[in-house]
Amino acid sequence: MKILVINAGSSSIKYQMLDMTDESVMASGLVERIGEPSGAVSYKAFPDTDNECKTTLEQPIPEHETGMKLVIDLLIHPEKGVIKDLKEIGAVGHRIVHGGDKFHAPTVVTDEVEQAIEDTILMAPLHNPAHLAGIRTAKRFFPDVPQVVVFDTAFHQTMPPEAYMYAMPYEMYEELRLRRYGAHGTSHKYVAGEAARLLGKQPEECNLITLHLGNGCSMSAVKGGECVDTSMGLTPLAGLIMGTRCGDIDPAVYAFLERAKGLKLSEIDMIMNKKSGLLGLCGMNDMRDIHAAVEKGDEKAELALNMVAYRTRKYIGSYLAALEGKVDAIVFTAGIGENDDIARAMSVQGLEALGISIDQEKNAGRVKEPRAVHADDSRVQIWVIPTNEELEIARQTRELVAG
Amino acid sequence: MKILVINAGSSSIKYQMLDMTDESVMASGLVERIGEPSGAVSYKAFPDTDNECKTTLEQPIPEHETGMKLVIDLLIHPEKGVIKDLKEIGAVGHRIVHGGDKFHAPTVVTDEVEQAIEDTILMAPLHNPAHLAGIRTAKRFFPDVPQVVVFDTAFHQTMPPEAYMYAMPYEMYEELRLRRYGAHGTSHKYVAGEAARLLGKQPEECNLITLHLGNGCSMSAVKGGECVDTSMGLTPLAGLIMGTRCGDIDPAVYAFLERAKGLKLSEIDMIMNKKSGLLGLCGMNDMRDIHAAVEKGDEKAELALNMVAYRTRKYIGSYLAALEGKVDAIVFTAGIGENDDIARAMSVQGLEALGISIDQEKNAGRVKEPRAVHADDSRVQIWVIPTNEELEIARQTRELVAG
Repeated sequence: MKILVINAGSSSIKYQMLDMTDESVMASGLVERIGEPSGAVSYKAFPDTDNECKTTLEQPIPEHETGMKLVIDLLIHPEKGVIKDLKEIGAVGHRIVHGGDKFHAPTVVTDEVEQAIEDTILMAPLHNPAHLAGIRTAKRFFPDVPQVVVFDTAFHQTMPPEAYMYAMPYEMYEELRLRRYGAHGTSHKYVAGEAARLLGKQPEECNLITLHLGNGCSMSAVKGGECVDTSMGLTPLAGLIMGTRCGDIDPAVYAFLERAKGLKLSEIDMIMNKKSGLLGLCGMNDMRDIHAAVEKGDEKAELALNMVAYRTRKYIGSYLAALEGKVDAIVFTAGIGENDDIARAMSVQGLEALGISIDQEKNAGRVKEPRAVHADDSRVQIWVIPTNEELEIARQTRELVAG
Repeated sequence: MKILVINAGSSSIKYQMLDMTDESVMASGLVERIGEPSGAVSYKAFPDTDNECKTTLEQPIPEHETGMKLVIDLLIHPEKGVIKDLKEIGAVGHRIVHGGDKFHAPTVVTDEVEQAIEDTILMAPLHNPAHLAGIRTAKRFFPDVPQVVVFDTAFHQTMPPEAYMYAMPYEMYEELRLRRYGAHGTSHKYVAGEAARLLGKQPEECNLITLHLGNGCSMSAVKGGECVDTSMGLTPLAGLIMGTRCGDIDPAVYAFLERAKGLKLSEIDMIMNKKSGLLGLCGMNDMRDIHAAVEKGDEKAELALNMVAYRTRKYIGSYLAALEGKVDAIVFTAGIGENDDIARAMSVQGLEALGISIDQEKNAGRVKEPRAVHADDSRVQIWVIPTNEELEIARQTRELVAG
């Protein structure tokens, strides 16, 4: 079965077509700057193979439908295309950031499902409307193909109440579903599954701490294959320090900034999401720039790096407690997790007495294939496993459609 | 030296007079409902001794000065009093909730010190004005006696930047001193000192995790006698789940509640401080009521209790990481920490694989004197040590005044 995976943002569509007979990527690319004066489509047929063929289009793309039409024309293009007929596509899998607590698993799109995604817009005001645009566009182009939604929150739905509830008035949970949902669930699930395989165990047999460290950063405690805690909350603002997001902070900072600076709620929210994190601390949010600056003696960059690592170590400790001290492996993934050996080393530095030791040589450099990086005497294994959310979405989509 | 310790709130003055030759309490009590139609003074001479003598006055107390005068009249009362002349008092020690990052140690009050406490009002808008009222009143009654301020934030001033900084724009730290300060520092310092003594070590030789669990709850990681991390933040709202405070939460809850319910920043701040925590979850904030309700099968009470304990266990794990796995003892103190054996047991439940085992028998019941409650095979000791903030303030005051 060939599956088209779509991740529709407010002004973009990330896509990938996979041949699930061998899980190979047939085509992938990105539609950018939808609704802006100049849009673009990038397209790769057979990426990362000898037959790779790149195409770039630059033209205004007023809405998602135009963008999708351009992608489809490329997919079935006589020379550049990878299929002859759209009917070869057996299913479309959509990434959805927020499924509230209605969705525990991938789901075939129906009117009710669309409504439920719409009902969750309050929790993901930027993402869910874009996802709905993606679903509706795909339905028009592939009316006879199952549309499957795969939720970034679904993997975390196994959390017990003591992990997902906030200590806010209980009525707010009942009325508004105010609770922790987490994010990056598809990535956490993927690397947790791969880690179990690499450890030679069934997922039910192993406990893991997974670290998805990219532009957004989150961690999960995974017990016997099921998520029992995660660092992101109601929204992806909570938890670790990220590129532009502050992560955990005293919530009274709102009242303080109102008193001290006359800032409004919406302004503080914007600052916490867009102007904080690494960017707020040192003016940079690309880890490569930060490492270069630290080399040159930039004290704010060094502070930012130390803070990121310290927060991560504390989360590792808290998830050791959540998993009752029984952890088989710590797994790093995503942009920083895969490519930044300094960040990885700092994330576990000084945890040797807790059974966590990294091997500096094994850890060195970027990681393209799964790699164990722990010291021989480390009680807890440490792995770097490149994530593959598109493959995970395609797998879940196929599993659901194939029944 | 006899020292009068004063903790002035917005409508109350808690006081204690200690004879520092033997650290005995000569008198203690509370002025309540200052500024309300009916006020009250309670007074105990030689409390908890055979000579204990209680007095209660009920009368309107328009401001702190009237309240203080009533206390002084009792202290020197020919029958009920404990001293003959106010000149016997060698120093007054004042508890101050927030010293910003200006105060690392107890300090003799000067005009500059008063100004600095005033400058910190933004961070403690309810407490610091009341403390200033207390200082000014005491200065009028004891013009020739050193007034010493002991800050609840001082013990935490040894935290390294990666623990005290928030991942917010760096300018906010420079301009507004936006950072983590912690609270209950006097209590954490007291029990950390007592724990070292009970372990037969110098404070510099031992690492501790101290849990102050009362109406407000906070934890500290103490390394070689110095605080390296604490759970409260810019304000006492952050960290553990408390009687009416939510503790840690996704800060995006503000934007969500504005979108979902049209709530204002000040309303959300009030809810998080006064209507959340145990009270918000189950309608009760006295642990005795909660245990009774759990016994009767109240599911919300059980949820609240499980959440409190789970959050505490995660903090223990994170401080294990902060202390690089090297922890001599976990120390419980304050109302819940001293009196609630169920809460203590749940706070360390399932942490045996991390070297933390409680002995249910040793742990049983309320604790009036320091008591070790760990199992014989527990690598980390567990102690219950009743806190004594007044004694700690008196000790610090004497040390400063005696030079």
